[in-house]
Amino acid sequence: MSTITISEASSKERIIQTAAALFAERGYHAVGVSDICEAVGLSRGTLYHHIRSKEDILEEICGNYMSQLGVLARQTVKEESEPEAQLERLGRDLLDIIARHKAELTVCFREIQSLTGERRERVLALHADYERIWADVLKAGAKTGQFLPYSKTRLKGLLGMYYYSYIWIRPDRPAMIEESTIELNDIVLKAVRAHS
Amino acid sequence: MSTITISEASSKERIIQTAAALFAERGYHAVGVSDICEAVGLSRGTLYHHIRSKEDILEEICGNYMSQLGVLARQTVKEESEPEAQLERLGRDLLDIIARHKAELTVCFREIQSLTGERRERVLALHADYERIWADVLKAGAKTGQFLPYSKTRLKGLLGMYYYSYIWIRPDRPAMIEESTIELNDIVLKAVRAHS
Repeated sequence: MSTITISEASSKERIIQTAAALFAERGYHAVGVSDICEAVGLSRGTLYHHIRSKEDILEEICGNYMSQLGVLARQTVKEESEPEAQLERLGRDLLDIIARHKAELTVCFREIQSLTGERRERVLALHADYERIWADVLKAGAKTGQFLPYSKTRLKGLLGMYYYSYIWIRPDRPAMIEESTIELNDIVLKAVRAHS
Repeated sequence: MSTITISEASSKERIIQTAAALFAERGYHAVGVSDICEAVGLSRGTLYHHIRSKEDILEEICGNYMSQLGVLARQTVKEESEPEAQLERLGRDLLDIIARHKAELTVCFREIQSLTGERRERVLALHADYERIWADVLKAGAKTGQFLPYSKTRLKGLLGMYYYSYIWIRPDRPAMIEESTIELNDIVLKAVRAHS
């Protein structure tokens, strides 16, 4: 069993957050390990004590948030019984995570092609897992006749609407985030309801 | 007045297309000028006869397609008189361009932060110009009472839905593109209509 001291855990956290901000601003390939060291105020040796490689950081960023979204989504499905309420909470949590971790999610949505081999496979599997939960909710609603028959294209469109918000969402404006949640959730419900 | 011979124009075209495919696959910063030379089969000297720099290519890719979308959108607004018909054609053209030039549009939507200074400003201005046409259509429909009062957030959400399709659209499957056009346009109309 490995023990992680608090300072170790928080150093790693700080490295990941700083790297995410740099990757989001300049693009993953434009940022070198030395840029990360400088921004986080650690020597190269100390940095490599916490992480194995730059790609390791990228996988952590992408993997962390897709896992978190998966956990939240599973909780939603367990705690809400109505498909409409489930959709609303899925949308709210998704936008909330994007707004509160804008740099990380920008990297998550924009840099997946920079991951190679198994790392890319693992992150794509987390994406697919998350999207499957949305699909299951839409299928459950279709089964009861509340929602239109399930369409993968419609789901892709609706999810893209939330995902792409990493471009325009303003974490410093809570009122805008709340308004966006209401507007986007409203679009989703109108799009999937069998009877308007 | 400059004269461009056909072979010059087509060489430049070929450089841009090849570079777009490489940038889309690996990310702009991961691709070197030598990679582009190799893929397009030109020496560095000949390449630099057609383009000034790698960033020049990136600006061409992003600028070309945003300009094209602007031209198509202005044509739509001139030729269609009804806001609903305008929206449907805007959506159809947007998805068509994304599907037929997937690599270029992937670069366009994902690499804007890799452009610097005035280049970035110019491309962002083209984006804003294009989005203004959609906004004007939504405002015109709101004025006649056909559409809900204009909301910038709603527009951002709906455009993001089309933009993000660069991730999942399959240019090799025309039936899927047609189905996606119908599905996404349907979501837009449901989202903006004042009366369902």
